[in-house]
Amino acid sequence: MAQFPITDKTEITRLPKRGVYDKDAVYAILDEALFCTLAYTRDNQAFQIPTGFCRIGDKLYLHGSVGSFYMRELAEKKPPVSISATIMDGLVLARSAFHHSVNYRSVVVFSTPEKVEDENELYTALEVFTNKMQPGRWDDVRKPTAGEWKATKLLSFKIEEASAKVRTGPPKDDDEDYTMDVWAGVVPLEITRHSPQPDPALKPGVSLPSYLK
Amino acid sequence: MAQFPITDKTEITRLPKRGVYDKDAVYAILDEALFCTLAYTRDNQAFQIPTGFCRIGDKLYLHGSVGSFYMRELAEKKPPVSISATIMDGLVLARSAFHHSVNYRSVVVFSTPEKVEDENELYTALEVFTNKMQPGRWDDVRKPTAGEWKATKLLSFKIEEASAKVRTGPPKDDDEDYTMDVWAGVVPLEITRHSPQPDPALKPGVSLPSYLK
Repeated sequence: MAQFPITDKTEITRLPKRGVYDKDAVYAILDEALFCTLAYTRDNQAFQIPTGFCRIGDKLYLHGSVGSFYMRELAEKKPPVSISATIMDGLVLARSAFHHSVNYRSVVVFSTPEKVEDENELYTALEVFTNKMQPGRWDDVRKPTAGEWKATKLLSFKIEEASAKVRTGPPKDDDEDYTMDVWAGVVPLEITRHSPQPDPALKPGVSLPSYLK
Repeated sequence: MAQFPITDKTEITRLPKRGVYDKDAVYAILDEALFCTLAYTRDNQAFQIPTGFCRIGDKLYLHGSVGSFYMRELAEKKPPVSISATIMDGLVLARSAFHHSVNYRSVVVFSTPEKVEDENELYTALEVFTNKMQPGRWDDVRKPTAGEWKATKLLSFKIEEASAKVRTGPPKDDDEDYTMDVWAGVVPLEITRHSPQPDPALKPGVSLPSYLK
């Protein structure tokens, strides 16, 4: 299995057994996460942008308006960035307050922004992005016009350094606490997609597509 | 309603109508979010830590091990940080690819770390933290020992500058697209808590507490 190199920036030093450097495992977390947080530095102050994203191969893609201040700053100054994504899988309720924890899968990527100029790459990224949000959606919708392409800025981030941190399983209590009369276990968490709510302005007669049923 | 001041760092310049500076609204998002992402800068590189947190009044609290490199770095160097939390409420499926969006509530806070030395503040923060994860939990569990307190580092972050960004409601398409035969609407998202899974090592006879039913 291909691995990311363990570097000063990506080494999991606290609870190293939770560290994951396998590329496929890191990619799977990035592909499941619905949003990421991009951080970069301006005058020693770390700024954060929560935003949607997608991955194609060894690159992450973020898009935004050409009118966005941070998109322009990233495209022009190309500062070093970190991009994180986290999925919460469960609340870990231990017998002691001290050992309470969460089951989670998180990734932190280090990279630098590149402005995407190639039209094919731009088109492909938007298709992958749309279908990541809702599989099957791209084929259904009106594709971007020339004017909309001009209003969209797409940035790519080669995944140069990355690591994941993962916790799974039941609580780990101190040996002497297992005899306590305290319930312990995991409350699983999941992001549920509820029944689609039609736009009040939906054209009469338009039915729910199969990929949303 | 009390408001956060709009500053260079917190002003929502892109889609300013989504900007929220009302303190109670910002606090409500922070209280609902199960984790945050803390970012700070080292040598012009922005690092990110996804982690649990809680709020008491105008302070956020994060805790970690005294053995954690980043907790020590934050406590000793007190770098300026940003802390973000995001809740995804729905996928917004428009008729055009261009107008696809998400309904979300996100907050970004700017602050600097302070090490909490006061025992009462430490105890209260850990109680609020535990009950935020699972309301009612604190009364049930074994409280920290002197040794566990020593192994725990708690940092507070006064919410000096903050803003939220919120999108709600159905898609907004271009006028001429509303006649298209394309389904449009919102797929609501929610973090579901599934049935608690008992620890395989649970002491026989210990029943599920009422706050988990």
